[in-house]
Amino acid sequence: MEHIRKAVEKLASPRLRAAVSIQTTLLSSLTNMMREEGMMQLLPVMVSPITDPLNHSVLEGSIRYGSTELQLTKSMILHKQLAMASGLDGIFIVSPNVRLELPERGSTGRHLIEFSQLDFEMRGRKMEDVMRFSERLLVQALRDVRARHGKELELFGRELHIPSTPFRAYDSRGLEKEFGPDWERILSASSKGPVWVTNHEREFYDAEEPDMPGTYRNYDIIYPEGFGEGLSGAEREWEYSRILYRMDKNGMDKAPYGAYLEAARMGRLVPSAGAGFGIERMLRYMCGAQHIEEVSPFAKVPGKEIIF
Amino acid sequence: MEHIRKAVEKLASPRLRAAVSIQTTLLSSLTNMMREEGMMQLLPVMVSPITDPLNHSVLEGSIRYGSTELQLTKSMILHKQLAMASGLDGIFIVSPNVRLELPERGSTGRHLIEFSQLDFEMRGRKMEDVMRFSERLLVQALRDVRARHGKELELFGRELHIPSTPFRAYDSRGLEKEFGPDWERILSASSKGPVWVTNHEREFYDAEEPDMPGTYRNYDIIYPEGFGEGLSGAEREWEYSRILYRMDKNGMDKAPYGAYLEAARMGRLVPSAGAGFGIERMLRYMCGAQHIEEVSPFAKVPGKEIIF
Repeated sequence: MEHIRKAVEKLASPRLRAAVSIQTTLLSSLTNMMREEGMMQLLPVMVSPITDPLNHSVLEGSIRYGSTELQLTKSMILHKQLAMASGLDGIFIVSPNVRLELPERGSTGRHLIEFSQLDFEMRGRKMEDVMRFSERLLVQALRDVRARHGKELELFGRELHIPSTPFRAYDSRGLEKEFGPDWERILSASSKGPVWVTNHEREFYDAEEPDMPGTYRNYDIIYPEGFGEGLSGAEREWEYSRILYRMDKNGMDKAPYGAYLEAARMGRLVPSAGAGFGIERMLRYMCGAQHIEEVSPFAKVPGKEIIF
Repeated sequence: MEHIRKAVEKLASPRLRAAVSIQTTLLSSLTNMMREEGMMQLLPVMVSPITDPLNHSVLEGSIRYGSTELQLTKSMILHKQLAMASGLDGIFIVSPNVRLELPERGSTGRHLIEFSQLDFEMRGRKMEDVMRFSERLLVQALRDVRARHGKELELFGRELHIPSTPFRAYDSRGLEKEFGPDWERILSASSKGPVWVTNHEREFYDAEEPDMPGTYRNYDIIYPEGFGEGLSGAEREWEYSRILYRMDKNGMDKAPYGAYLEAARMGRLVPSAGAGFGIERMLRYMCGAQHIEEVSPFAKVPGKEIIF
């Protein structure tokens, strides 16, 4: 009962109200920039026979509808690739993702078992294009929030700095060599502004450098002041043979991806690059909140009792 | 394999591309009007111990996380009421809902097992306020689509009429008496413009007329030309004793709603009224498409094989 009362009291807190107000500006700012860029808005996919395999372990979450097993969306990456088959130049989605994280992730301050990302994909673009566009999105959102939410930021005791672009970029291999496996935390804690980290060995759909096997055309934004990862993106593998090769290399069972692979075999996937900003993480960074749950009314923290 | 190929070919169809383009305008138009009204944007809830019990039978869809059973969101109505506890004057969400409809609903032309609604709630407002605001939203979206999408509408062979407001309103009891249980279909097929139907006996949270038990302060928009129901809304029950009474009257098991009921008992729910527009249904109506699946890239039709 005490947990319930705390969850109800939180809903009435002035800080939460301030966070929701900032969130409204942030979503307006980001989605309007997408539209000005000529990108088309898709609606979320929540259940599908296919979803992102992810690069880290989460508990399985699926439901049955008749004889079909439907996965809850972990990210819309595969659907983004499929949607590009329509010949659209760019797409975006405010996309809720459900990732049943292991309980120990509750203490990172930035993991929730459901969250939303502003997910987007651009046809025929390269990693540098998406990196520059992502910087513009973040800087504009920061500017808009700073201009309109002086009072709310004050409530959080937050002074927002507008970073200069382009952000400094690091190679993940170099960071790992210098700082060991905990490089992300160390880099984030010591950075004064957002930085890029490129070249991660991870999911099959992130493109490999054609002339440099083992080098990857992907990129993450790491927020400063310890707020950690805030965007993840990549150029994509889109050729059938390359996708098969990369799935094999990751030791994946191809059976669940039959329809996606058929679309690739039919030649309907196209070269693209994209990314996704975690909305709650961006909001946490802007508010300077210690834990992401402070800025989300119905936050579900891994390992913590879920009330609403 | 034939099903897969058809699903892939559909993704590349000019009609679908046109629909997505209209959808982009429609979402921009609707959400900008919400913001101009001073309403705050929430992010979707997809899994929670509580969700809308609905008024019609669907198959159950839940997952487990540790010892907690999480329902897939059928609508965010209970979360909308809880979020109003924050003292916000108005909220909106582009909210995906998963409703595992029985296979026979596949032939209605307007049911999907996942869809998105533009869901909103206004503090201290009455049914008439929300009806007038909903009319303004729909008319403005129609105007914007007609102004910007001549080419796309031509592809659908669609001539869009801007309805005059207020829409004509009917009482559901009168319609049932005149046309029998199939009144919605008959009314929609014979109407020249959108109409209101009020006073439906359904979920516990739709407010009952204080001085007229058995009369309800709820309202649906029925689109003309056979496109059927497009919005559903109500003033809400918010007092603890009234909610208990209405749950009992509907023969509901109150156990799953413990946290929601505790918030009501604590006096944290507030008088409000709201509604939700089905986005895909509005888009289908605007395009004049025969089946809702024609306007949705990854449409999941009840009883039909699910590819993506």
